[in-house]
Order: sequence, then structure tokens, then C-alpha cells
Amino acid sequence: MVLEYVFAVSLFSLAVAAYVVMWILKQDTGTAQMQEISSAIRSGAEAYLRRQYKTISVIAIAFTILLAVAIRDPQNQWLGLYTAGGFLLGALCSNLAGYIAMFISVRSNIRTARGATSRLDRSLKVAFRGGIVFGLAVVSLSLLGISVLFLLFGGDPRLIVGFAFGASFAALFAQLGGGIYTKAADMSADLVGKVEAGIPEDDPRNPAVIADLVGDNVGDIAGRGADLFESITGENIGAMILGLAPAVYAVFGINGLIFPLLARGFGLIGTLVGTVFVYSRKDEDPFRSLTRGLVVTGVICALGFYLLTEVLLNGELNYFYAALVGIVGAIVVAWITDYYTSYRRRPTLDIAKASESGPAPGIATGLAVGMESTGVFILVIGAAILLAFGLGSGFQAFAGHLSVTDPLFQRGVYGTAIATMGMLSVTPMVLAMDGFGPIVDNAGGILEMSGMSEEARATSDRLDSVGNTTKALTKGYGVASAALSAFLLFSAFLEVAGLSGVDLEKPGVFTGALIGAMLIFMFSSLAIRAVGKTSAVMILEIRRQFKEIPGIMEGKSKPDYSRCIDISTKAALKNMVMPSLLVVVGPVAVGLVLGAEAVGGLLMVGTVVGILMALFMNNGGAALDNAKKYIEAGHLGGKASQAHAATVIGDTLGDPLKDTAGPSLHVVVKLLNTITLAMAPLFAFALIG
Amino acid sequence: MVLEYVFAVSLFSLAVAAYVVMWILKQDTGTAQMQEISSAIRSGAEAYLRRQYKTISVIAIAFTILLAVAIRDPQNQWLGLYTAGGFLLGALCSNLAGYIAMFISVRSNIRTARGATSRLDRSLKVAFRGGIVFGLAVVSLSLLGISVLFLLFGGDPRLIVGFAFGASFAALFAQLGGGIYTKAADMSADLVGKVEAGIPEDDPRNPAVIADLVGDNVGDIAGRGADLFESITGENIGAMILGLAPAVYAVFGINGLIFPLLARGFGLIGTLVGTVFVYSRKDEDPFRSLTRGLVVTGVICALGFYLLTEVLLNGELNYFYAALVGIVGAIVVAWITDYYTSYRRRPTLDIAKASESGPAPGIATGLAVGMESTGVFILVIGAAILLAFGLGSGFQAFAGHLSVTDPLFQRGVYGTAIATMGMLSVTPMVLAMDGFGPIVDNAGGILEMSGMSEEARATSDRLDSVGNTTKALTKGYGVASAALSAFLLFSAFLEVAGLSGVDLEKPGVFTGALIGAMLIFMFSSLAIRAVGKTSAVMILEIRRQFKEIPGIMEGKSKPDYSRCIDISTKAALKNMVMPSLLVVVGPVAVGLVLGAEAVGGLLMVGTVVGILMALFMNNGGAALDNAKKYIEAGHLGGKASQAHAATVIGDTLGDPLKDTAGPSLHVVVKLLNTITLAMAPLFAFALIG
Repeated sequence: MVLEYVFAVSLFSLAVAAYVVMWILKQDTGTAQMQEISSAIRSGAEAYLRRQYKTISVIAIAFTILLAVAIRDPQNQWLGLYTAGGFLLGALCSNLAGYIAMFISVRSNIRTARGATSRLDRSLKVAFRGGIVFGLAVVSLSLLGISVLFLLFGGDPRLIVGFAFGASFAALFAQLGGGIYTKAADMSADLVGKVEAGIPEDDPRNPAVIADLVGDNVGDIAGRGADLFESITGENIGAMILGLAPAVYAVFGINGLIFPLLARGFGLIGTLVGTVFVYSRKDEDPFRSLTRGLVVTGVICALGFYLLTEVLLNGELNYFYAALVGIVGAIVVAWITDYYTSYRRRPTLDIAKASESGPAPGIATGLAVGMESTGVFILVIGAAILLAFGLGSGFQAFAGHLSVTDPLFQRGVYGTAIATMGMLSVTPMVLAMDGFGPIVDNAGGILEMSGMSEEARATSDRLDSVGNTTKALTKGYGVASAALSAFLLFSAFLEVAGLSGVDLEKPGVFTGALIGAMLIFMFSSLAIRAVGKTSAVMILEIRRQFKEIPGIMEGKSKPDYSRCIDISTKAALKNMVMPSLLVVVGPVAVGLVLGAEAVGGLLMVGTVVGILMALFMNNGGAALDNAKKYIEAGHLGGKASQAHAATVIGDTLGDPLKDTAGPSLHVVVKLLNTITLAMAPLFAFALIG
Repeated sequence: MVLEYVFAVSLFSLAVAAYVVMWILKQDTGTAQMQEISSAIRSGAEAYLRRQYKTISVIAIAFTILLAVAIRDPQNQWLGLYTAGGFLLGALCSNLAGYIAMFISVRSNIRTARGATSRLDRSLKVAFRGGIVFGLAVVSLSLLGISVLFLLFGGDPRLIVGFAFGASFAALFAQLGGGIYTKAADMSADLVGKVEAGIPEDDPRNPAVIADLVGDNVGDIAGRGADLFESITGENIGAMILGLAPAVYAVFGINGLIFPLLARGFGLIGTLVGTVFVYSRKDEDPFRSLTRGLVVTGVICALGFYLLTEVLLNGELNYFYAALVGIVGAIVVAWITDYYTSYRRRPTLDIAKASESGPAPGIATGLAVGMESTGVFILVIGAAILLAFGLGSGFQAFAGHLSVTDPLFQRGVYGTAIATMGMLSVTPMVLAMDGFGPIVDNAGGILEMSGMSEEARATSDRLDSVGNTTKALTKGYGVASAALSAFLLFSAFLEVAGLSGVDLEKPGVFTGALIGAMLIFMFSSLAIRAVGKTSAVMILEIRRQFKEIPGIMEGKSKPDYSRCIDISTKAALKNMVMPSLLVVVGPVAVGLVLGAEAVGGLLMVGTVVGILMALFMNNGGAALDNAKKYIEAGHLGGKASQAHAATVIGDTLGDPLKDTAGPSLHVVVKLLNTITLAMAPLFAFALIG
């Protein structure tokens, strides 16, 4: 069977990842002082993840039992067990993906730092290879999990939606918990260290500085890994379900179901090849080097889609073009994100300028820039969906009048599914670039704290600024892929729930829609508050240490880093539970009371609002951050100016928006889809639906 | 015909309003200094409105021609002219309503100030009567306009949608322009006066202080008047159209169409009676006094609905209960708003406490509170819609499975229309309470600037704090009524466009939905930026005057108030055009390209997102404002503390959110509905729909 090919590629990718891990471990780890700091980060991150996974496990097991008991389907008495089993495996794999990502990042950071003390390209290589392990592991695990379940469950993708739900479920906790941890540590370190005590960032005298560096690993690495694990998992399973639509299945048969798995396999191959092209020629801009790798990956993926379309989809090249729409969409979205967040562009410069009148005008402009960034982005996503749909349905009937039961409609939706696969095919490479950021960020922290040479720090700063760019771009990519996936998963939900449409005119459906939007706002609120609550505890602890430990400010005695880590850990875990349960319980409650169509309304509108709010918060926060960097680069009066003080406030405000609430919303958007997909059989028994 | 009754009530209300105007004009106007300040405010406000109306007229006339030419209907060749004529009249009436409101407010403020120098109840009486004129004029004008057109156009409410569109169109410019003016003046006065120069609020040495007081009149009074004029106009016409639904018309005939007009008439009567109950007993809390008036109005409206149901709707008391749902909903919504914005409650106290760690945590908490406030609010609105629908359809089929063409469905929707009428029936009284706020605010400013006694200022401060409460409550009321009206207008759109449903699963409709949500974010962004741009110009001017006018800081020479007024006026008018055109052109463009169903998606999702964003910004901004007031009342260190400085920044940020973008979104939500209602015939010729 053709699935063997998928297994082979996945296992090969994992083998490559293992080989790269060994290569990284063989690199030099620098001075004893660097090692001491790095091992503190490592043990902090490991301790946090251990406890986080314990918390997630308890809740996940409770849900597994609930799923096994509650889900009933007259046509398939084992559906509850299939779903529950898939769920548990999905949550496990997601945690495993996050753990592997963290495992390698806390070991790459010190070696990247050491590399920076000798040569730029050495440092770049270690950091990027750390990212590659991350990308390959996450994608191979997802592909393996789906393929195994697909075989085990008799080739029916509807039975493995539990796996996608489990992946989303674990990802939400991981991304939110990690996001709270990292930003609470960051905010408190800044507020007490930089603002109150007047010491620089990453200063070893700051008791929260190690917690801050731990945060990069558990939030940006482990959290993002889980996020993208569930993205590709949900998309893969959703696309396979759409392959079951009568009009699609009639033409392509089983090929339409296997296509998504093989396409993902090509993504892995493309990444393996693209990796070879990431090297820094003499004094080459590291960003160019990364971009070259991405372009190569994209080209190979495109070739793969061409091949697959020829072999599996009867050579209907329209589907190949749909995949191209997705790949090009990914590039355009990255470009838009860059425009709205880079300080070489008008929006961020506007924030810097407005900050000259004070923090309030600066922040107001920052929020406005975040809102504005939704404009072109949405037009591009809308155009991509329409174009892919048009290609799939052969443009014979475009958008409006076509009935959803029309065969052309189903083929059109399959077109949008293929566009989504196109966009997500480059995921492993994008993940590698994304992981690169926190690794070099950590490396910079280690160099700063161990008092290394100015030269090494300059090298690492150069990589760090590249890391900031890739982080912002991959967030844009994350939202775009969430938007496309959601449209696809929504269609899959209708397929599974047996609905012929979602009609917003019905009061129950409209109420569902209102609640969907409201859940996004409530979740964002709780996420932001969670950072506030966690950092409030941290702040007290940092102030206490500054006051009670004699000689701390003179650097004569060491602060108690581990207490800050401990406090961050406990508070983050405590505060991640409520918001997560809200978005898990909300859709199920609506479904049980108002029925499946109301859930459809909740899903669609929740998705739309989630995407917009994520864009608003990600881009607004990033632009506020970069406005500060612009002034720190010496413009508008530089570091000593009033404007700088104003942008510091703006940056601190932006942190929980862009690194906690925003990225968690990517997960929420997809969780809403996977949870309703898994729970759909329940909604037939709605109270007043 | 029964319409005579409507005419009689409207004219009688106008006569009462005229009588009250005369009573107000007879009151004493205080010292010469007070008169000088008051006349500066008056001429500034009048000059602004004159220019604003000129700008609106130019754009409105262009649109009138466009409507007359573009709108074609094979069944009615005069539809374009009907729509265009209605549009022009609607825009005119809206401007007139705003003008009357401003006319009386700039004359009541000084008399309220004078009243405060003698007795509290005297001051309360003038301010409240000023508000009453405002409420009565706005509601009677709307009722008269609709009734006249209803008679002229042969009793078909579908022909008068142009009137509603005209009202929304003019309201958007008025609310946005006024909102930009008032907040730009406020922000600049605060940023340069309070923060940079260290002089208190409303200090006569501040060159922007008169512009700030003018702003209260053109933003909070004229803007809000236009906003609620279009609210009740749109709702009235929409409800009449729903009376045409076959299942409703079959049972009630013309009675179902006239019901909304008579219900509005009872609202006027209720207000006239309620007014009598607004008096301050010896040392009674003024808020109690206002609440008593509102309760009396509500009771009389409820009686009116009972009577009307008996006479016009065959005594089907379920519809009477639906009206009660609306009236009770209005009260619950006011309570929720109070909870989230009052500084006696947890949310605002949290902001004050977080501000002790700095401005960023305070603002983050403020944004989170704004987002959180959507939760209960949405549940209440959803429950009201479901309950009213259930009552209308006799609970025989509730929400989900009922088809939209089912007679029970149409009766259910008519039930939600009556709930909306119930909620909006107390509008004239609510408007009176709303107008009360800016009038006493202005009075306080006049007393401060003319250096009157501490005692008079204390009296006026007491009224001012009541005014702040009523302002926040009426904003919550505005959003709730916008939400209910939108659901009703949406049903009317489907009726007019001949659609049987809006199915979000279709890619064109989903794209429309994405664009609808995006328009709200773009509009908010542009509105916030407009305040920023306008205040940037003002700030330069204030700084220039402080520097160049000798003796200004010692109070020896007077600042040049009129230049600030002039700058504010020009900039506000310039910056209001772009955002307004965006939400006017956006839906039409989507309709012309993607067709009517995509517009339906845009409408529904734009409405949902608009409501949530308005709540977020209104309540978040108000809570930030009140957190500052809490600290100023002497808590957490009082005025000299770091926490106070932090909340001042939060308050300044909240201003454009709560007084420009938020209230303008109420109008946008309804404009989206009325514009698509008027343009519906065009969307049949969509490009690729």
C-alpha cells in the first residue's frame, strides 16, 4: 500500500532528526559559567514541562473517560472508544512533540552561544539545526500517528477525529500555560528590574532572569510545537474527511484520502533538501540564508503536488494550481506581517512618533495598527479561499448560487482543502525558522549573563534580530493556516454532523454565533489576566529578594533564581486551567442545549473573530515591541528620551497580547473545530435544538 | 386612520419640548464671566455643527443622486426615487435632531451652572429638562418622518428604507466627527495641560479648554442624538417590514404594521409622565430621582404594550410578554454595564490595583475587563432573542429545526421585533438621562473657569458623578438595542432581498463574513487613528501658545481659544470621512461582487463583531476612567501616587476607545443593516455571485 511510503518518509525524517540531535550534542558547550546558567535554564524548563504535562494528563484522562462513555452512535457502537483512544494518543503525541522541541532547544542554546564566541556561521548552524529537529519531529510524529490510526481504524478518517481533538486539547494547555509563564516572567523581570531597579535586561542580578529564559523554551518552543502539531494534524484529518464527500470520492476514490498524507510527506522531503541550503556564505545576511532554505522547500513541495496530482487525481491540474494558491498565500501573508510589524515601515514608525506625545497616544496607535493589519490579510485569505474553490469546481459556478449539495460544490471545497495543504506543506521548514528565534534569544541571554565578550554578543544580537523577524512571520503564517484549516474543518464538521447548512437567520444559530464570538473575547480576557495574576506574584518575590538579600545589587551575592522559577511554574499552571476549560466546555454546552446547527454558527463566527483578534493582538504587540527597538536604535532621541520610556510601557503591554493571548487563539480556533468534530454525535440529542 | 393618533402624540411631544425650551431660556444665566465662557462654547459648537452639516450635505447629496440613478426594480420603476427621497429626508431629520439637541444643551449648561450656585434641585431640574428636550425632539422627529412617508408612499414600509439609511448615514458622520472632535480636544488638553504644564483640568489658562467643552456638546449630545435617532428609525421601519411577512400579515393585517408606530407613541407618553416624577426631594440622591422617572416610564410603556396587544394583535398576550422581555432586558443590561465600570465593583478595582505595578499592567487589565464584559452581556442578549422568538412562535418549535419559511418561524421573528420595540420604548427617557451628563459636565467646566465658589462646584460635581453613571448606562443600552435591532433588520434584509437563508458554509458567504468582521476592525483602527491625528495638530498648537503668549501661565493674558477650536474643527471633519466611507462602500462592493447572500454573511458577522468590539471598547475605556477616579477619591495613595500617574495614562488611552470608536460602532452596526436594506435590489446583478 502507498502508506508504506508515508511511514518510510516519517521514519527517515525522525532518523535525520536523531542524527542532528547527536551532531548538536557533540558541539562545544563553552565556559563553566555558561554551562552553569544553561543547566539552570534546562532544569527549570524540564521541571515546568514535567508539571505541565502532569496537569494536562489528569484533565486529559478525565476527558478520555468522558468521551468513551458519552459518545454514542447507533451505527457504530465502538465510536466512543475510537474517539477516546484517538484523543488520548493525540494528547500524548502533542506532549511528546513539545517535549522533544524543548529537549533540543535547551541544549542548542548554549552551543549557539558558544558558536557566537567564534564565528557567525557556526552559531547560525547550531541554532538552525536545533530548529530543524523541532520541525522534523513535530511533523513526522503527526504523520505517523494519523497513518497508524488510519490503518488501525479500517481506513475511515471520521473515526480518527479524536486524535485531532486530543492534539488541540493538549496544545491549548501547552501554548497557554507556556505563554503565561514566559510573559509573566518577562513582564515582572522588566517591571521590577528595568523600571524600578534600573538594571539592564538579562542582568544576572535580576532574580527573574533565569525564569525569563526558561519561558522562551516552554512558551515559544514547546508551546509553538504543540500548536503546529495540532494545526497539521487537524488539517490532515479534515482534508481526508473531505475526500469522503460523495462527489470527490466518486472520482478519486481512496486516492483523495491518501493525497493529504503523501503531500505532507513531500513537505518533509522538501525540508530535508531545503536544510542543505541554509549556510552562511562569508558575511551573508543570516535571514537570506534562511529564506533560501524556505524557497527551496517551497519549490520541492510544489513539484510534489504536481506529481501527486498527476498520479492520484487523474492529472486534474486545477488541484495543483489550488496547492500553488496556498503556497503563494503563505508568502504573501509573511510579507504583510513584515509590513505591519517591521520598523522600516510606516505603521511601526507611526507608533514611535506618536509615543513622543506620551505612552497613551503610542499605545492607542499600536492598538490601531494591530486592528488595521487585519485588512489586507483578510482580503488575501478571502481571495485564496474563493480562488481555490473556483479551481476545484472548475469555475463553472463560483460562489453564491451553487447549492452545498451540488457535486461541483464538494469538489470546490476539496480545492480549498488542497490549498490548505499547499500552505501547510512548508510547515516543517517554517517551524525550523520559528524555533531558531528562541534558541538565539536564549543564547544571547547566556552570553550576557556569563559576561562574555562584546564581540560574541554582537554576533548573537545579529542573529537575535533575525530571530525576531522569523518569529513574527511564522505567527502570521500560523494565523493564515488556522484560517484556511478552519474553513476546511468546518466543512468536515457539516459532513460529520449531517447538516446541509448553517443558517444564521435562525435565532438559535445567531445566538450560537454571538456566543462563539464572545468565547474568543472571554478567552483573551482570561489569558491576559492570567499573565497579570502570575506576574503580580512574581513581582512581589523579586522586590522581596532585592530588599532582603544583602549585596544582591552589587553582584556580591546571587539571587534565588529557583524561587522565581517555582512561583512562575505554579501560577502559570493554575491560571491556564480556567480559560482552557471555557473554550472546551462552551461549544459542548451550546451543542447540548441548542443543537448542531447552533454549534455551526458558534464555530464559524468564533473562527472569524478568533482570527481577527489573533491578528490584532499579534501584530499590534509586535509593532509596539519594534517601535521600542526603533527608538533604542538611536532614533527620536534614543534610549534616554521620553519617547523611549513611552514605548517601554507599550512594549510591556504588548507582551501578553502578542505572546500569550494571540498565539493561544490560533489553537483555540482549531480546538473549536476539532472538539465539535469529535462531539458532533452528541448534538443530535440537544435540549431545545 | 389610526395614524392620526401617532401624529397627535408626536406633535404634542414637540409642543411640550418647545414649552420646556422656553422655560429653560427664562432661567437666570449667572455672572458676566459665566456668560462669556458659555457664549464661547455656544459659538464654537454652532460653528462646528454648521461646517459638519455642510460636509455631510455634500456627501449626502452625491449619494442621493447615486441612489436615484442606480436603484432599479422591474416591479417598481420609482423605487430609486423613493429610496433617494427617503434618504435625503432621513439625513436631514437626523441633522436636525442633532442640531436641536446641541441648541438646547449649549443653553442649558450655563443655567445649570447658575442653578448650582443656589440649590442642587434647581440645577438638576435645568439639566434634566435640557435632556428631556433632546429626548422628545429626537423621538418625535423620527416618528413623524416615518409616519408621513408611510402615508405618502402608499403604506408600504419597504419603500421607506431609504429614510432609515439616510438617518444612519448622517448619524455615522455626526457621531464619528463629534467623537473625534471631543476626544482630540480632551486628550490634547490633558497631555499638554495636565501632564506637561501641570495645571488642573478645565483650567482657563489651557488654550484647549473651550474646545474640550465644545466637544462635549458636539460629540456626546449632537452625536448621540443622531445615533439614537437612527436606532429607533431603523428599528421602526424594520419591524414594520417584518409585519409584512406572510404568516404575520395573514393574522394581523395592517395592524401588524402600525403596531411599532403606536408603541413608539406610548414611549413618548410614558416619558412625558415619567418626567413629572423627576424632582429632587430634600437631599435626595439625584440618581434615585432619575431612576424613578425611568421606572414610571417603563411601567407606562408596559401598560401601553398590553393595551396595544389587546386591541391590535387579537389579545395574543405572548407578544405582550415579548415586549416585557425587551424592557427587562434594558434594565439587566444597565446593571451589567454598571457592574463592569463602577468603581465600587471588582473589575474596576482590579485595574486600580494592577496600576500600582505600572501603567502597562493597569492598561492590560483594563483591556481584559472590557473583553470580559462581553460575557454576561451576550448571554443576556442571546437569551432575550431566544425567549422572544419562543414567545412569538408559541414555543411549539424553538430554535433549531424550524425552517425559515415556516409560518411559526415568521411569527417568532415578529416576537423578537416586539421585544426590540419593548427595549426601545423607553428611549426618550434614556436619552434625557444621557443628555443630562454632558450638560452637567459643561456646567462644571463653566463654574471652574469662572472661578465660582467651592460650594457651587461641589454641587455640580455631585451632579457630574451622576452624569458619568447615566452616560455609561445609556451606552450599554445603546449597544443592547443595536444588537436586537440588528437581528430584526437582518431578517428584514432577507425579506427584501428575497433570500431564504444565509449559509456560511459557502465560500463566498464565508468571505463576506470575514470582510464584515474586518470592516469593524478597520473602522475602529481608523477612528482611533483619527483622534490621534487630530490631537497631534492640537498638541502642537497648545504647546506653541504656552511658549509664545507671554504671561499665559500666570493668568495675566488669555490664551487664544478660538484657534484651538478652529484646528479641532478642521481636523475632525477631515478625519471623519475615510472611516465613514469605508463602511458605506465596503458592503456595497461585496454585494456587487459576491451577491446578496455574501452581504448577508457580512451583515451578520459584522454585526456580531461590531457589538462585541463596541462593548469591549466602551466598557474597557469606562473602567479605566473610573479606576483613575477611584484613586483620585483618595485610595491606593491618592492623587500623588505612582498608581495615579499610571491610571491617568490608562484613562487617556481609554478616551478614544470609549468615546470615539465604541459609540461610532453602534452606528456602524445599524448602518451596515440599513445600507444593505436600501441597496438590496442592486445585489441581484452581482459579478460572480
